[in-house]
Amino acid sequence: MAIEIETQFSFALEGVGDVLLQFEAAAIPEQEILETSTTMSEADHVARIAAHDGIGERIWLRATGPIEVRYAARVEPRRITADLATLGGLDPHLLPADTVQYLFDSRYCPGAPFQPFVEAEFGGLQGGARIAAIRDWVAERFRYEPGSSDTHTTALDSFVERRGICRDYAHVVISLARASAIPARYVSAYAPGVEPPDFHAVAEVFLRDPTIAGGGSWQIVDATGMADPAETAKIGVGRDAADVSFMTSFGEARFGEKTVSVRANG
Amino acid sequence: MAIEIETQFSFALEGVGDVLLQFEAAAIPEQEILETSTTMSEADHVARIAAHDGIGERIWLRATGPIEVRYAARVEPRRITADLATLGGLDPHLLPADTVQYLFDSRYCPGAPFQPFVEAEFGGLQGGARIAAIRDWVAERFRYEPGSSDTHTTALDSFVERRGICRDYAHVVISLARASAIPARYVSAYAPGVEPPDFHAVAEVFLRDPTIAGGGSWQIVDATGMADPAETAKIGVGRDAADVSFMTSFGEARFGEKTVSVRANG
Amino acid sequence: MAIEIETQFSFALEGVGDVLLQFEAAAIPEQEILETSTTMSEADHVARIAAHDGIGERIWLRATGPIEVRYAARVEPRRITADLATLGGLDPHLLPADTVQYLFDSRYCPGAPFQPFVEAEFGGLQGGARIAAIRDWVAERFRYEPGSSDTHTTALDSFVERRGICRDYAHVVISLARASAIPARYVSAYAPGVEPPDFHAVAEVFLRDPTIAGGGSWQIVDATGMADPAETAKIGVGRDAADVSFMTSFGEARFGEKTVSVRANG
Amino acid sequence: MAIEIETQFSFALEGVGDVLLQFEAAAIPEQEILETSTTMSEADHVARIAAHDGIGERIWLRATGPIEVRYAARVEPRRITADLATLGGLDPHLLPADTVQYLFDSRYCPGAPFQPFVEAEFGGLQGGARIAAIRDWVAERFRYEPGSSDTHTTALDSFVERRGICRDYAHVVISLARASAIPARYVSAYAPGVEPPDFHAVAEVFLRDPTIAGGGSWQIVDATGMADPAETAKIGVGRDAADVSFMTSFGEARFGEKTVSVRANG
Repeated sequence: MAIEIETQFSFALEGVGDVLLQFEAAAIPEQEILETSTTMSEADHVARIAAHDGIGERIWLRATGPIEVRYAARVEPRRITADLATLGGLDPHLLPADTVQYLFDSRYCPGAPFQPFVEAEFGGLQGGARIAAIRDWVAERFRYEPGSSDTHTTALDSFVERRGICRDYAHVVISLARASAIPARYVSAYAPGVEPPDFHAVAEVFLRDPTIAGGGSWQIVDATGMADPAETAKIGVGRDAADVSFMTSFGEARFGEKTVSVRANG
Repeated sequence: MAIEIETQFSFALEGVGDVLLQFEAAAIPEQEILETSTTMSEADHVARIAAHDGIGERIWLRATGPIEVRYAARVEPRRITADLATLGGLDPHLLPADTVQYLFDSRYCPGAPFQPFVEAEFGGLQGGARIAAIRDWVAERFRYEPGSSDTHTTALDSFVERRGICRDYAHVVISLARASAIPARYVSAYAPGVEPPDFHAVAEVFLRDPTIAGGGSWQIVDATGMADPAETAKIGVGRDAADVSFMTSFGEARFGEKTVSVRANG
Repeated sequence: MAIEIETQFSFALEGVGDVLLQFEAAAIPEQEILETSTTMSEADHVARIAAHDGIGERIWLRATGPIEVRYAARVEPRRITADLATLGGLDPHLLPADTVQYLFDSRYCPGAPFQPFVEAEFGGLQGGARIAAIRDWVAERFRYEPGSSDTHTTALDSFVERRGICRDYAHVVISLARASAIPARYVSAYAPGVEPPDFHAVAEVFLRDPTIAGGGSWQIVDATGMADPAETAKIGVGRDAADVSFMTSFGEARFGEKTVSVRANG
Repeated sequence: MAIEIETQFSFALEGVGDVLLQFEAAAIPEQEILETSTTMSEADHVARIAAHDGIGERIWLRATGPIEVRYAARVEPRRITADLATLGGLDPHLLPADTVQYLFDSRYCPGAPFQPFVEAEFGGLQGGARIAAIRDWVAERFRYEPGSSDTHTTALDSFVERRGICRDYAHVVISLARASAIPARYVSAYAPGVEPPDFHAVAEVFLRDPTIAGGGSWQIVDATGMADPAETAKIGVGRDAADVSFMTSFGEARFGEKTVSVRANG
């Protein structure tokens, strides 16, 4: 099954400015890029650099005035998904070096304050069973409410307010996982079924992988229930939303319009 | 000139627990490890893993009961330091992939809220000249006051309160640099002259390096004035203090004592 | 000189709901209400109660469906204003009972964190001279920027970001006054010259009053420079914006439109 | 039954300074002061002023050097307590003027962010039944843990961390009541059974009182379970802990020792 993506957005730079973009599905083993096309208005300078953890690319743009970006792709996810509840966890001392940063508190996802809560609520569960319970706990209690959060909203705020958008659902799952000593990161993605259609965000946790002796792998968790992990095209990863914006402007910019369309194509 | 380091600390784990340690001077080109000795009480499991950005190592420990750690080393810094004020900056679109994470907001070091301030106060200055001015601004206005901050204190708090310890000085410099679109990270270090003797923390910023065509390098900035960049032994780096703790416990632990001694040896 | 006020706003309650309104110029000795007219859509229940510190009134409304409020008034301020810089302060132990609450930290206006800053920046100044310096410091460094703040923005945020609207200017002045052990409260008001026309907010501080033996009085401070204290019509007071909303809804409400017109009429 | 109170504390002022004290059981109808004795070191100036809501008194002290305070009293509570769960609530539009401030967000007790939570968790309950459920919810889930909170800890933090001391329990109950449109205030008190012995804090909510036609009264709520409302001696009230400190210093002060002893005397 392929995912057909069409994204388009525009902005205008007052004077010359630098912009960092990250909107393309990542070319990584777990998803095949069948077709891809990126068109951008002419700029003074364009550079592609590897994104966080080497997953996907970011584009540096130096330009003046109006910029329009068009992206179309067909992506075939090939990731093997597992029933989360059946996966074990890895004791912290077995975690590989590059997962350790995802145990620590980040801008939007502090883990430490949630420790008493996860112990009380999920104390009897370990690894994937705990993550599945966390996902279900959030799914049951939170209300998906566009406009209820903004760029200041942390997982603490969302946990108290019990509402938000995909970003906030992911932040809470990540914080509760970190409070459980399970590495958790933020994934920006394209997924069919997201309503209203937009960039999507899910959490990803590092759990024991029965197919890798003594090792683990990252598993997608979506407490909003909107995305099927098997049919999700990853754009990039990071510690939380601060790391994976589709557009970051260094210099004055006026944002124009954005449309995102994602369809599953049997 | 060599730096002689002696560190010793102890803690006790209630039941079996995992602990992550990071206290050794990093073996990196800019500092030569002349001698080193690490002794730890016997543990069930010990693993060494690369630390953030591949600078230094972290040690995973799985153990029960009391643990004592002793570390002694002689380190010879070889880094070439420059007068910050003479170094240019790099336009964002020229920044290499691995510095980009250090432009983004982290747990303790948000950059975005400080943008109007840095523009108003340091708007006429670029690159290293701006960093030098930021360092001097902090040094002049802040009071070094042990006990005035804790693990909740962010750069926003410290900026308002104008006081703190090395951790807080570094956090404010990092935030003001990020607000200026200059990558900035947190460095845990050993430095002679730190009073009272303890682990030290400084900021590091990525500036144009005249010896690298079109490129840049990391430069130490210490607004406390206690450490000489040329005589500092780095332990590790990260986005802020959340990433570079000398000890993180996963499981109940009682901390014992800690002594740190650092001497310059001509 | 009279101030002519016309205000109009509407909202709709989903089902039966309670609403608290505070939008009329207060009938207090320092301002004479020459004419006044309040018209509201029919409600199930209307009650007038004294507002904070007995300054002005609040209106409790119990109603269903759409509500429209129209208010028109002519108000003649009679307050005697003084050059702030010439007024002394009162040592804390001389402060009367009802001013003490205005020394303490409130939702948006913590004073404690700003103590090192006010000491460093305004340490040589006391009483009204310090308040005048605080007002000028804010006026010089802040940018009036509608949309840059929201209901989460505290004086700490505004102090760092150096921008906001009248609400935020008032919050910062109040916090810096409290940090100086000078009682400070938040005043909702009508003032000609506010651009864009809207409810206005200013700070008020309690200073020695040379016309009252051993006593003090409240003085308006407007760091935005938009309102002339002598030509301001107070609506109500409180610890900060949390206390003096023109409309607070208990129950689901959709806000409609609001227009505020304030003119000086020689 | 009488409560026997003995309190003693000391501090030293560097230079001349102003201090605000509030430690005496309030002389109010609901509790009779049978005996009372307050002794303080000589000061330059002593003034008694009414405290918040006219409940109890605060003492302004102007002094230099060491100050010792000794207080002893016998207090007979006469308040009529009711089973919370049997009391109704008052619709907001029936609330008297002086209770309205206790609906609004204060420094440590924001109500607004908790609205979705109280609706989801206690939506079927009104008035006293809801308050009783809130009290039990907190009592069941929170751990009393001295040292786990400090002067920065808000009800949001405590709600997430699920632990704290009496101050934090009271803050959470107050926030959840405010989120339910029930006025709630903070009460500083003496109560036998508090362990370790110290000043105690409880919440107080305004509910329908069947003995007052159409009216309401304040009812004590203690989610820590340590104090019996019928055997509690109130010191003072306020919006939250920021309003009811037993000692607030304006000027440099070093705190000495404090002992509090409270016994029920049949």
